[in-house]
Amino acid sequence: MSSKPISMEKRYYPYEDFLADTKDLTEKIDWKFDSIIAIARGGLSLGHLLGEFYDIREVYSINTIGYEDTVKLEHVKVFNIPELSGSKNVLIVDDIVDSGDTLIEVLKVLHKAYPAGNFKTASLFYKKSAKIAPDWYVQETDQWIEFFWSVDLNRKK
Amino acid sequence: MSSKPISMEKRYYPYEDFLADTKDLTEKIDWKFDSIIAIARGGLSLGHLLGEFYDIREVYSINTIGYEDTVKLEHVKVFNIPELSGSKNVLIVDDIVDSGDTLIEVLKVLHKAYPAGNFKTASLFYKKSAKIAPDWYVQETDQWIEFFWSVDLNRKK
Repeated sequence: MSSKPISMEKRYYPYEDFLADTKDLTEKIDWKFDSIIAIARGGLSLGHLLGEFYDIREVYSINTIGYEDTVKLEHVKVFNIPELSGSKNVLIVDDIVDSGDTLIEVLKVLHKAYPAGNFKTASLFYKKSAKIAPDWYVQETDQWIEFFWSVDLNRKK
Repeated sequence: MSSKPISMEKRYYPYEDFLADTKDLTEKIDWKFDSIIAIARGGLSLGHLLGEFYDIREVYSINTIGYEDTVKLEHVKVFNIPELSGSKNVLIVDDIVDSGDTLIEVLKVLHKAYPAGNFKTASLFYKKSAKIAPDWYVQETDQWIEFFWSVDLNRKK
């Protein structure tokens, strides 16, 4: 999950870049996992493509709220925790690790619910200022990324 | 979820077509909903874009198994049923309604778990031979659709 822009440079991120970066991500991930949890909404398309690529059916979503409109909440709320019965190694994916608050809270909730699970994390983007780094990421950025999934439907005439 | 091809004509379905069809779908859906359930994996990208478009954070996934490799199971298994507390009108989305078995089973399971919920269904593709039609769909087909999310990562050099 990403934060709202204040006065940040915007960068449009088209499907083609997403595809190339997702391919790069698969080349970086040197770990065998049996399930994928996509942090909704931002991680859903990434989770989808990775699930297809690795032929993993166990692609789940988890939901968080960190902002109410443009106001940052004090704590990230995590809900809709997936049933991970049968899963051992779980890859958590998101579009961007921004402040890191979302990822920290998701990991906390999942470790608590599944103490025997191994969780690792991957994202397309990572901001150096984040409180936590994902295990694998493709690009470092300090820009506000306009992902295609957020804007293409509105642009399309 | 779609079935395995036997000797069916294949059609590659690129991101651009997905975007145009998803836009068409939003113009067809004349119903106000507060949550989206994407049938994994096929419905995940559609659920993602629709969630962004309608600004609905409550985008969930539900998982099904209908095939073991190429062998059709007698019954579709549904798992990872989302927590729908606070949801009233739920749009269930999938890439294609093929035999209809998946959608029928998902609806059955959700109606049982949430008897007070209103569930409607939308897909990009629909086969006339299916046992159930989604409330909204964009294209009728009798082809085997090769969705970009299934093949683009493997094509990408």
